Amino acid sequence: MYDECERGITAAKGFQAAGVHCGVKKARKDLALVFSTVPARAAGVFTTSKVQAAPVIVDKFQLDISSCIRAVVINSGNANACTGERGLNDAWSMVEKTASALGLRRTEVLVSSTGVIGQYLPVEKVRSGIICAASELSHESHLSAAEAIMTTDTFAKELAIRVSLDGAEVTIGGMAKGSGMIAPNMATMLGFVTTDANISAPLLRYALKKACDRSFNRISVDGDTSTNDMVLILANGLAENRLIQDPDEEGFRLFYDALEYVLVKLSKMIVMDGEGATKFVEIKVLGAGSEEAAVQAAKAVANSNLVKTAINGEDANWGRILAAVGYSGIDFNPADVEIKLGDVPILGRQYTIDFAEEDARRVLMQKEIEITVDLNQGDASASFWTCDLSKDYVAINAHYRT
Amino acid sequence: MYDECERGITAAKGFQAAGVHCGVKKARKDLALVFSTVPARAAGVFTTSKVQAAPVIVDKFQLDISSCIRAVVINSGNANACTGERGLNDAWSMVEKTASALGLRRTEVLVSSTGVIGQYLPVEKVRSGIICAASELSHESHLSAAEAIMTTDTFAKELAIRVSLDGAEVTIGGMAKGSGMIAPNMATMLGFVTTDANISAPLLRYALKKACDRSFNRISVDGDTSTNDMVLILANGLAENRLIQDPDEEGFRLFYDALEYVLVKLSKMIVMDGEGATKFVEIKVLGAGSEEAAVQAAKAVANSNLVKTAINGEDANWGRILAAVGYSGIDFNPADVEIKLGDVPILGRQYTIDFAEEDARRVLMQKEIEITVDLNQGDASASFWTCDLSKDYVAINAHYRT
Repeated sequence: MYDECERGITAAKGFQAAGVHCGVKKARKDLALVFSTVPARAAGVFTTSKVQAAPVIVDKFQLDISSCIRAVVINSGNANACTGERGLNDAWSMVEKTASALGLRRTEVLVSSTGVIGQYLPVEKVRSGIICAASELSHESHLSAAEAIMTTDTFAKELAIRVSLDGAEVTIGGMAKGSGMIAPNMATMLGFVTTDANISAPLLRYALKKACDRSFNRISVDGDTSTNDMVLILANGLAENRLIQDPDEEGFRLFYDALEYVLVKLSKMIVMDGEGATKFVEIKVLGAGSEEAAVQAAKAVANSNLVKTAINGEDANWGRILAAVGYSGIDFNPADVEIKLGDVPILGRQYTIDFAEEDARRVLMQKEIEITVDLNQGDASASFWTCDLSKDYVAINAHYRT
Repeated sequence: MYDECERGITAAKGFQAAGVHCGVKKARKDLALVFSTVPARAAGVFTTSKVQAAPVIVDKFQLDISSCIRAVVINSGNANACTGERGLNDAWSMVEKTASALGLRRTEVLVSSTGVIGQYLPVEKVRSGIICAASELSHESHLSAAEAIMTTDTFAKELAIRVSLDGAEVTIGGMAKGSGMIAPNMATMLGFVTTDANISAPLLRYALKKACDRSFNRISVDGDTSTNDMVLILANGLAENRLIQDPDEEGFRLFYDALEYVLVKLSKMIVMDGEGATKFVEIKVLGAGSEEAAVQAAKAVANSNLVKTAINGEDANWGRILAAVGYSGIDFNPADVEIKLGDVPILGRQYTIDFAEEDARRVLMQKEIEITVDLNQGDASASFWTCDLSKDYVAINAHYRT
């Protein structure tokens, strides 16, 4: 659909990155820096939790008062959440150190953290790391940066694509981290996107919000929402396309579609890397009365522990799927519902059940599974992405702190 | 608090029961019958799912048109859910057979099923079983009945208590089954209560609804709500207390409190027997602005897979508890929250953390754990009961149908 290109977060013109080890984690990389060589417009989407980590509070403030962002600094291994006044000071200290190391104003820097909740940041180590990272900024360090934001992730998640906008070649690149606590409305999930598109700040915000609702907010690993989630985007205009400032123009549509594509791809990578996940599952709800109803139904199925364990056990338990739609809160007629596993119909209208278990198992044995629920009620549809629930999820999360 | 007495569902005057094997399950008991020797008033609370099993539809109809119930017939091993027209016919067939076997009118019988969804009931076996059960009705068969409604339960759940009402001795007895798919608002959870109290039908309905909201609707094993949940109560008046018909009189208060006690006890038994559960957990939210907010917060903590796996791993991860309150949707100030594990404070105001891990572990190593979250915001409180999430939960549910 799109030409994918190299260099994730540094694929767009004028962006550099670095990923270093500063000592928050024992041995692995734990500090990333993203830098735009020219001023960039920025937007963010943040956790809806009432418990907001210090970097979330700082970034909301920054994006409110600042029209230009040049750098984002991210540490992993410590979430700087539930750390009160001192945590806020530590987040500001990361901002200030980054600004001074790069010769920027304090208003031009955003900050992000992920890791354990409720422990103070070893801020001197982080400040030293920032100096080190600033000296290592390059177009080639995209993978180092993507690795430095990982927590329980088992692989780095990055991606970039090109799209042509009125003759100009625009690049959108990004990196993300999961992988526990993933849930709708931003679970501990960080996403960073850079683009050289020339787009107005209001439209950038609008595009990011809408694309997040259709990507990061449609994935679920365990239904828990975190204190630190954020998706940030920087757009520096170096592609020199004509400024996108009208939501109805073709240029905006092309940009938006490409952005949604990048965010959906990153979201799917997060699900594929869900803690203990052995299968990637797409829940597709068709024939709904509205897109909201379709999302609500798909989300209930995606979050059902009973559905997720059945998929783990490769059991075509359509009753659990229908039961989850039943308690999702949407209005529908159960007797009208049709359910398919991949291309195998496992439930017809009027509760007709006529499938060979071996056909269903053939689908369920695959690594990627599509479950289609047709409500036969309207024209709206939505997809939601999740993974199975395995014994390993329990093993990983039973002893996370220790 | 109350005198518990023998004989669960048959403890109250004039109630008999039976539990037999009729062949829905391979070898274990699968059909229970509860019978009142005199006419009884009845009330029911049912699943809120849009997908309602045939017995749920039949019982709502019966309770709408009938002022007197004499018998309840329950099968396990097959839920008779998502079975369309034929399933409804099968449920009515159970009602009719029970009525004819006991010489009752069809309007005097309620029906209930639990087990696998989406398979037709072997109704001839069930009908034969009803004849057999009717011939075995006795005051002594309470345990057989409680065993006959079990699915993945590992122990039968029954209880009875006595309470004195204006000189008369009133008995309330009950039985229940869990244990997968337990969630607020009636997960596959059946509860049957009998009492010889003399109480008006409207007050009986009111008491059952309120007591369910504070018991069965405050437990959670996996957050899934089922298609078959119901709690039924029969009150036959044989205790000869003065008719309870005023919600403000002392008699009602005494009856209500006793009923709530029975339902809470049965609910806790369900949680203790949650699939794969190794620990029983009470989440107590104090200092909330309203009881609804307290329930909402407690429920979010109880349903968090991350909290439940941490408890399984005996890890004092207060951050996950606070994060769950954070996304519960209630309004509160995170910096005001205090959290205790048993009697060990693990989080103080302003995110003060000052506890010895070994003290927290001492609490977490117990079989029953109390988590107290004080929002320090108001005077309302609520408790919610749940269990931990273990590898065995996954193992049990990965291959349930096979």
